[in-house]
Order: sequence, then C-alpha cells, then structure tokens
Amino acid sequence: MTTRILTGIKPTGRPHLGNFVGMIQPTLQLIKDTAKEGEAYVFIANYHALNQDKDAAQIRKNTYEVVATFLALGLDPEKVNFYKQSDVPEITELTSILSNVTPKGLMNRSHAYKAQRDRNEELGKELDDGVNMGLFNYPILMAADILMFDTNIVPVGKDQIQHVEFARDIAGSFNHIYGEVLTLPEFRIKEDAATVPGLDGRKMSKSYNNTIPVFEDPKAMRKAVMRIVTDSKLPEEPKDPDNTIFQLYKEVEKDSAKVKAMYDGFVNGGLGYGDAKKMLADSLDDMLAEPRKKFEELMANKKYLDEVMQMGAQKVRKQAMKKISKVRRKVGLD
Amino acid sequence: MTTRILTGIKPTGRPHLGNFVGMIQPTLQLIKDTAKEGEAYVFIANYHALNQDKDAAQIRKNTYEVVATFLALGLDPEKVNFYKQSDVPEITELTSILSNVTPKGLMNRSHAYKAQRDRNEELGKELDDGVNMGLFNYPILMAADILMFDTNIVPVGKDQIQHVEFARDIAGSFNHIYGEVLTLPEFRIKEDAATVPGLDGRKMSKSYNNTIPVFEDPKAMRKAVMRIVTDSKLPEEPKDPDNTIFQLYKEVEKDSAKVKAMYDGFVNGGLGYGDAKKMLADSLDDMLAEPRKKFEELMANKKYLDEVMQMGAQKVRKQAMKKISKVRRKVGLD
Repeated sequence: MTTRILTGIKPTGRPHLGNFVGMIQPTLQLIKDTAKEGEAYVFIANYHALNQDKDAAQIRKNTYEVVATFLALGLDPEKVNFYKQSDVPEITELTSILSNVTPKGLMNRSHAYKAQRDRNEELGKELDDGVNMGLFNYPILMAADILMFDTNIVPVGKDQIQHVEFARDIAGSFNHIYGEVLTLPEFRIKEDAATVPGLDGRKMSKSYNNTIPVFEDPKAMRKAVMRIVTDSKLPEEPKDPDNTIFQLYKEVEKDSAKVKAMYDGFVNGGLGYGDAKKMLADSLDDMLAEPRKKFEELMANKKYLDEVMQMGAQKVRKQAMKKISKVRRKVGLD
Repeated sequence: MTTRILTGIKPTGRPHLGNFVGMIQPTLQLIKDTAKEGEAYVFIANYHALNQDKDAAQIRKNTYEVVATFLALGLDPEKVNFYKQSDVPEITELTSILSNVTPKGLMNRSHAYKAQRDRNEELGKELDDGVNMGLFNYPILMAADILMFDTNIVPVGKDQIQHVEFARDIAGSFNHIYGEVLTLPEFRIKEDAATVPGLDGRKMSKSYNNTIPVFEDPKAMRKAVMRIVTDSKLPEEPKDPDNTIFQLYKEVEKDSAKVKAMYDGFVNGGLGYGDAKKMLADSLDDMLAEPRKKFEELMANKKYLDEVMQMGAQKVRKQAMKKISKVRRKVGLD
C-alpha cells in the first residue's frame, strides 16, 4: 500500500504574508516531500467553513482564491489529489455513519469545544452559548475526511494532535464492531512554522488588521510595508535587529548576503527604517511578482479553476464511492 | 403546492401483533387518508437504526421484512413514495449542513438524550455514559428527513412533537440566514393507537418476550394464543371481559356480532378461556392468512423487494438532488 498523506486547507481567501509564510509555504513543502514517499491528498475544507462563515458569496470567493493561490505557487494538480471537500459528499455520509460509534464523551473533550465553553464560563454565559452542532461535530467530520481515503499520515501542528487521535479512536471503535474496514491514521508533527509579525508587531492576522497583502495590487503591498511600526531611531543609530522589518525580511529574502547586509546595517547603525522597508518591499516584489501575475490570470479564468477542482474530484470521488459502499455493506445499509 | 405528509418506520423486522395493531394498521390508514389531501412519503429509517443496532445482518433482514410487511398489507408503491432512507444519501449531506445552524443547546434538550442522562443519573453513572453521537445528533437527521422533501405535515404521537418542533426551529434558523429555502413543517397528532396486551397481560413487546407473532408459522401463532395467561375460572362462571383475550379479540375481529358474542359469553358465564382462545386464533387466522401468504411470497423474492425500493428511491432521490443542489448554492458550497 502506498503511504497516503492528507492535509486540509480552510477557504480563508486571498492570503496575506502571514498565511503565506505560516501555512502555504509549509504545505507546499509538505506536498513536495510527500511525493517521495507516497500520495498527497490536499483538500479545501469548505464543509468545515460553514460552521463559522455564513456568507455564501464570501465562501465561494475564498474557495476560488485558495485554489488559485496554491496553483499560482506551483501545486501540480496532476500529481496531487487536490479537491474541494464538498465535491465528495460521501464524506458527510461517512460522518453520519461514524457518529453512531462515536461516544459523546469524546466530543465533550474536544479542544475547540472546550475553548468555547471556557470563554463562556469566564464571561458568565451559558456554557453552550454560541456553540452550534457544526462545531461540536467537527471532529467527526474531520475523522471522515481522514478515514475516507485510508490516510496513513496526517501532518499536524502540536495543537491538532487531538484530531488525529479522535480519528484513530473512532476508526478503532468502528473496526471493533464491524471488522477491519478503516485504516488507523498516524499524526506527524509539523515543524512550527515561523509566526510572522504584523505591521504593529503583534502576530499578523486579519482580526488585528495588521496584515501585508501579497496577492493584491503591488502598490497596496508597498504601502502596507511602509506603515510598519518602528521606534524613532535615526538612520545612523544602531538598532535592535529583532524588529518587525528584519523578522519579515529574513523569512522573505532568499539571498543570505542581502539578509546579512540588513542585519549589519541595523546592528552597526547606518541603515534607516525607511530604506530597510524599501529593501523588504523590493524582496516581496521579487518573490511575488510572478505568482501574483499567475494568480490574477487564474482568478480571471474561473472555468479553468472549476476544471481543476473537477479533475481532483473525479480522482478521489471514485475512491470515496468504493470506500463508502464497503462501509454501507458492513453496517447493514446495503 | 401539494400537501406532503411524511412518516418514517424503523426497520424492526417481522412484526408481532402489537406492532400490527399499534403501528402498521394506523400507518396504512394514514397513507390511505393522505391520498385524499396530498402526497405520502413513507421511508424505512435505516440510518436511524444504526445508532442502536450494530448487527448488520439483522438490519438488512429487518429492512426486507418491514418492506414486505407493508406491501403484504396493501401499501401501493406506485401511489406512495416508499423508500429506504439510505437510498437518499443526500439526507446525510443536508444533516451535515443543517448542523451548522443548529444550536447545541437545542440538542441538550432532546427528550431521547435527556431520558438517557436521567437513567445514568439514577444509576450514579457519568451523565453521557452510553450516549453515542448518533443518538445526540438524531434530531438533526430527523430534521433533514423532513426538510429534504418540503414536508408540510408530520403525523406524530404526543411524545414525538418535539422532533417536528426542532425541525421547524432548524429550518427557521437556516431560512433566517440564507433566505426562504426550507419549508417549515407542522405536526399532526395521531390518535393514540390501542396499546395491545401481551401473553402475560403486560404491554406486548419483544423485550418482555410476550408477543404473538403474526407473520410466522400459523401453528406458532396459535400456540402463542393458547399460552395467554388467564385466571382459573371455570367455563360456566361469569368473567371480567377486560381480560387479555377479549382485549385482543376486539382489536382483531371485524364482525361486531362475534365480538358481542364473546363479551356476553364472558359476562354471563358459559364461555371458557380455552374456547375463547380458539375464537381469537381463528380470527387471527382469517385476518392474516392472505397477508401471511403474500408476505412469504415477497420474502422469497428479494429481487422484487429491491426493485420496489429502487423505484421509490428513483422518484424521491431526484427531488432530493434538486433540493440539496439549491441548499449547496445558498450556503456557498457550489
């Protein structure tokens, strides 16, 4: 059996630099590495998106933008199983079936659910306030994502280990009752990706409104860079190199001589923040000019994006139909 | 718009006399009545069965037996939308989508779930002991059953009103967010069907092992009738007519003169229990000889039963696909 590695991407739309460094680049690297040891499954988790996001137009747009982003940055849909979760509705049927072998006690312990309860408790609200059943069932849907394709390995951050453990528990419980049908997945801890600081020095995040857009108008990107908050040291003064500009520059600029030059300029003095920002903006331009052009072309060609998703769906749906049909026979539906 | 009336039947297998009088006859009557005012949807709830019953062979057998029972007793699959729930997997996709607009607080109040918690509390167990997510999600699956077909009316017993209220709540919440897509169903309270006493005088139930089989060997049926527990009054003594034999006889025998004769025989004395049992067995034989023969023929022809289910599935699945496609567009999956 080939090793199968699966990873899901939430349709969060046009990425900012933080997504780019923190999620997209590591995922692309993962896909590359996976090619050596097995098959990669990469899906846009749009069923999952519904539990937070109720704006249909936004979800549709975000989905296209995520697809275009990965293609623009070199994901090869011929080599990778790249699909929209909702193009495989068998996943929801598997979710429904798995729920019957999933103890409620397991879901009570889900981190995402408990975090919401803790927040409610602090605020003196009803413990289940604002919790919908999409959130509560979310680990079962995730188990179905994983188990549908006999996934062997799921790369996760340290805070997502539980998802894979739950999928193992659910698969184990199913197999115990119905025989060996589902493959027990294992997790693989991903190296922590760099946390990228935003314009104000806090973590870069849409909710802080401190992002640097990467696939928008290049002028907007440059403008954002120029708005990075610094102290008021003069160009000639030595500066702490652990500032936002340098932290971003070292993630973005591949030429280590240039990175060293900025470092030295800060430490020894002589490099002003304004010039450093221009260096950062130039590097971003160099890195992103090509993918940005490709992204725009792709976004102007939704028909092609649809075709790519259909191609992915066709490949994996065949597998899903085979699997669900086996599961249905095992539980007595067929 | 035609009125649509929907009712689900759990695949409980070969019926006993209690099922026959308490569930099957009223459902058939309902279908007949419905024909006057609209379309009937009658489905075998096999997804629902999975949360209690983990024996696949048993579920398969039970499903065939329920289909054969209804056909043997005159359900016309040309006139009624008669289908297996699992032949419309779109119902599970709708369940998944609806869960995102279903507050967990609503499920916490579900009667079935609360009953289990109360039992656990009494026994000093963990409150969620033995609760699986199939049980906890059950009202959402039921809402999907109802909302998938724009059902207007759901006939329920008094203890099932909550199911329809939940389906209304969920549909209302969906429509509030996404526009008027789902039809809000109404419940119609069914007349309480007669509770049929079993051989020992308690309610007839498989779990009490006190049933009279109706679709088994006629000799077995007669034997069971002969085992009905009575007092030890002699034939000539007057007897309380509120005994198990008479309670069953008046449900089963259509000829009111004969019913009166048994009544008089008991009240005035002169009718022995043995003779009364023979009268009951004869009536059961008269009533069931034809359907039993038909049932056996149907059970010997699984291919035909499959065809009937496929015909039903074809009719309703087309509607379900149309509906789910509208729902998918509304929420942003397509």
